[in-house]
Amino acid sequence: MKTYFYDTELKYDGTQLHSHFAYKNFNLLGDSIIAFIGPCNVPTENMVDLEDVQNNKNIFSENMLHFIVEHFDHDLEKMIAYQRLLIDLIIQEMTESHEDLRLKRVGDDIYDDIYKVSVSIATSSPVSCLIHTGINVSSKNTPLPTKGLEDYGLNPHAVATGVMNRYRAEIDSMIKARAKVKACK
Amino acid sequence: MKTYFYDTELKYDGTQLHSHFAYKNFNLLGDSIIAFIGPCNVPTENMVDLEDVQNNKNIFSENMLHFIVEHFDHDLEKMIAYQRLLIDLIIQEMTESHEDLRLKRVGDDIYDDIYKVSVSIATSSPVSCLIHTGINVSSKNTPLPTKGLEDYGLNPHAVATGVMNRYRAEIDSMIKARAKVKACK
Amino acid sequence: MKTYFYDTELKYDGTQLHSHFAYKNFNLLGDSIIAFIGPCNVPTENMVDLEDVQNNKNIFSENMLHFIVEHFDHDLEKMIAYQRLLIDLIIQEMTESHEDLRLKRVGDDIYDDIYKVSVSIATSSPVSCLIHTGINVSSKNTPLPTKGLEDYGLNPHAVATGVMNRYRAEIDSMIKARAKVKACK
Amino acid sequence: MKTYFYDTELKYDGTQLHSHFAYKNFNLLGDSIIAFIGPCNVPTENMVDLEDVQNNKNIFSENMLHFIVEHFDHDLEKMIAYQRLLIDLIIQEMTESHEDLRLKRVGDDIYDDIYKVSVSIATSSPVSCLIHTGINVSSKNTPLPTKGLEDYGLNPHAVATGVMNRYRAEIDSMIKARAKVKACK
Amino acid sequence: MKTYFYDTELKYDGTQLHSHFAYKNFNLLGDSIIAFIGPCNVPTENMVDLEDVQNNKNIFSENMLHFIVEHFDHDLEKMIAYQRLLIDLIIQEMTESHEDLRLKRVGDDIYDDIYKVSVSIATSSPVSCLIHTGINVSSKNTPLPTKGLEDYGLNPHAVATGVMNRYRAEIDSMIKARAKVKACK
Amino acid sequence: MKTYFYDTELKYDGTQLHSHFAYKNFNLLGDSIIAFIGPCNVPTENMVDLEDVQNNKNIFSENMLHFIVEHFDHDLEKMIAYQRLLIDLIIQEMTESHEDLRLKRVGDDIYDDIYKVSVSIATSSPVSCLIHTGINVSSKNTPLPTKGLEDYGLNPHAVATGVMNRYRAEIDSMIKARAKVKACK
Repeated sequence: MKTYFYDTELKYDGTQLHSHFAYKNFNLLGDSIIAFIGPCNVPTENMVDLEDVQNNKNIFSENMLHFIVEHFDHDLEKMIAYQRLLIDLIIQEMTESHEDLRLKRVGDDIYDDIYKVSVSIATSSPVSCLIHTGINVSSKNTPLPTKGLEDYGLNPHAVATGVMNRYRAEIDSMIKARAKVKACK
Repeated sequence: MKTYFYDTELKYDGTQLHSHFAYKNFNLLGDSIIAFIGPCNVPTENMVDLEDVQNNKNIFSENMLHFIVEHFDHDLEKMIAYQRLLIDLIIQEMTESHEDLRLKRVGDDIYDDIYKVSVSIATSSPVSCLIHTGINVSSKNTPLPTKGLEDYGLNPHAVATGVMNRYRAEIDSMIKARAKVKACK
Repeated sequence: MKTYFYDTELKYDGTQLHSHFAYKNFNLLGDSIIAFIGPCNVPTENMVDLEDVQNNKNIFSENMLHFIVEHFDHDLEKMIAYQRLLIDLIIQEMTESHEDLRLKRVGDDIYDDIYKVSVSIATSSPVSCLIHTGINVSSKNTPLPTKGLEDYGLNPHAVATGVMNRYRAEIDSMIKARAKVKACK
Repeated sequence: MKTYFYDTELKYDGTQLHSHFAYKNFNLLGDSIIAFIGPCNVPTENMVDLEDVQNNKNIFSENMLHFIVEHFDHDLEKMIAYQRLLIDLIIQEMTESHEDLRLKRVGDDIYDDIYKVSVSIATSSPVSCLIHTGINVSSKNTPLPTKGLEDYGLNPHAVATGVMNRYRAEIDSMIKARAKVKACK
Repeated sequence: MKTYFYDTELKYDGTQLHSHFAYKNFNLLGDSIIAFIGPCNVPTENMVDLEDVQNNKNIFSENMLHFIVEHFDHDLEKMIAYQRLLIDLIIQEMTESHEDLRLKRVGDDIYDDIYKVSVSIATSSPVSCLIHTGINVSSKNTPLPTKGLEDYGLNPHAVATGVMNRYRAEIDSMIKARAKVKACK
Repeated sequence: MKTYFYDTELKYDGTQLHSHFAYKNFNLLGDSIIAFIGPCNVPTENMVDLEDVQNNKNIFSENMLHFIVEHFDHDLEKMIAYQRLLIDLIIQEMTESHEDLRLKRVGDDIYDDIYKVSVSIATSSPVSCLIHTGINVSSKNTPLPTKGLEDYGLNPHAVATGVMNRYRAEIDSMIKARAKVKACK
């Protein structure tokens, strides 16, 4: 599991949710989680969440912290479980230093009371499975009530690094758990 | 996903972590999560966590809330991800009504500061994968510092029901997420 | 397993054999079997059976009862077994009230003596596996000798409902069979 | 897919439903369907259908035509679909020469009106999946109303050969169907 | 496993690495290994090895012996293992009659000292996995130091036939090995 | 992929071919290849190769270099391919410094002319797949004509280390190959 923070603003428009994005752009070969910061605006033709397409949902944010995860594996069910663990790890990271912050995961979303903090999708490519998760940095001008890292005084770069380290550790720890257990009857 | 609370004290000694436990005992056919309350004492020959065996760890509690989950599927990697989501859901349930309670998941364990709140293992049987998770009700006479539901004034039966509902909803929501997403390139 | 009869004429031209067809058109999320009635005319560029393409086979019928099945699973081998079970269930449904009707399944086709009654294909999409099966309603002007529901005095809507109920029950019953069996040595 | 008819009476007591039964006894290496004739009496400790165990069902027949199928594959879901196709093929074989015989498949059982004609189970071993299907030859002294091949004047050996040929052809034809189809979108 | 030598010059430009190539062109239905002889020139847009794309590698040879393998299976990891076994079988075939020839496999390449003898890639299509391996016949005008069958006085047609027979025998022998082994604890 | 040479004589009697052997004995958690030196004598009840059992084959050697490989994965077909690659790597290692040594792989065996150099088996456990390969050190008193490392003046410890490094590098290189390739059509 490789991790990488790309320290240049990059707009997320859905084309980043492609197989080998980390390899082609940052030369990371193999399973990876990468992060970058930038606006989010996904035109309908790039949306893979068909529920969003049907609801004409607008995926938009002036500034987000984006994560792209890729596992070279074909099991989308497992990837969706990993996606939700990633969301839980983001909440852990964000609340660790902010004891009074009450975030909760609902499916693959993060909410602070009625405020939406994130967007996320897990999908499969012909050679891998991928996750995109975007955490609002700014909460301005969003189509529905949101909160962002700026509202909490959280540094996006620090959150990115913390989350990527947690995710890598989680994956390692699950591989170990898989290998240390005896079957039952 | 069937759910069932068995309202009679039952001691967990590791033999409950067997395929078809819910079917044979409670006539639940298919994927299920069940709960019961009782002491926990797993003799070494019933332990499936080989790390615990190697460390001569003693799995003991005077009283615990136990969950047994069974999925008729062979993917232990996915089951370990589900196990960790279950732990997160238990934390959600326990902290929902106790805003000041600071629990954190470390791998498949729940900690309150230095106090261990739970034990858990995920394994595979010849026909399925299973999870056992035990949450301390009592924290007395445990081999290491622990906290339990009694220390927090939480009702075990209520927690059991809340967790089982959350787990069933999570599984349903992941099945839906799997079915509503388009592949990417 | 969701079932749906779309009560408006719809021409099958092969573009219906696409992932999420039931979700996009009828808002059925998840595994489903749907039915509709209409002509069948699949241009070569939409054919997925390469044997038909090589043989320049013409997939045409003036009027057919169509079924589209989608399972969000990647195992095309299993889907082909399900397809053949579906064909057997269609025969069961058609012959239940017509004791003298002698239909037989040959591979994934239904024959009445030398008359072809159906066309069918099972394939995989990037996120699922799909089946199309078309049963002739009319047997007029077909490229080879055929029989259709009209020849047997069978009501297409009633057959559709009967088949969909049988298929859903079959899938449910297989899930139960999977969960109630002990492994052998 | 190898086929073999063992032309010596053999009692089925459940121990034949073991991996490598055909290899150890008849030197058939690989996927196989074999048949033999003999009484059926499965003691509870050899039963793998836990529903039968729970219902104290008695699996008994004075004389049956037995099939044992083994595929060296781990997918029990697919094996259950194959089992039901096998049942359909047995019905095809039995009714081909007896046009007036009305048999129907209900799950994995064959019924002639209220008379049970067969027993069947599909399960998994540590290296393979297996099916046992027994067709009554005799219908005498069975615990519930049954019919057998003798009642229909059908020759067990001829039925055995016919069914095994049909099963091998079905498997071959499904492998070809898998290989000749293009993916859809 | 079908084998076929196409005895007409054919240029390999990457478009041959498509699902059903053997079926569409040579009517081989199912798993196959085919061979043909001709130049090799793969334009960047047809390259599937992204490392080659990133390095602007030029895949070129005046004349090569080409193998295309297709297995109707989705496991690319297993296909890569088969690819490397194929390379070992090519070396076995080439050195059997040339005792002094010292070829070695490095990953999926064949080297004779510093001279590159082959190119190879394994990939997945929507319905199968595929391998292309090209062995230089000529070593003239290649972008880096190479050796070819002509340099060793080896007949390409004979090598093709020998390799295809070895590959088919290897696959058969692995299927048998899979079926004759008991599980361990 | 962890590697370990156990530098104490250990007799191989088949009980080492058990899941978690490397973890329980050498504390290697996860996928591993280990080596040790010692006699080989596998009683029939410990044999997993049923062909050997049927042929009353005697698996015996006064002294062998043993490898045990474990991958926490359920695909025995892939493991058999890995086993044969391991055999090829052993041949590479043994012949690298002995240019005149002509070893060849036949299935999962190594032969030097008519002399058998190795034994090997790949199997599955309830949680993993495993390989045992034994290379004769001594060729004395074997039930059939053999050659061993002593006959070639090869140091068993050096061969062990070389082979384990090659196997780890091969697995790493296959993981990279899996991640750098684009799907084809």
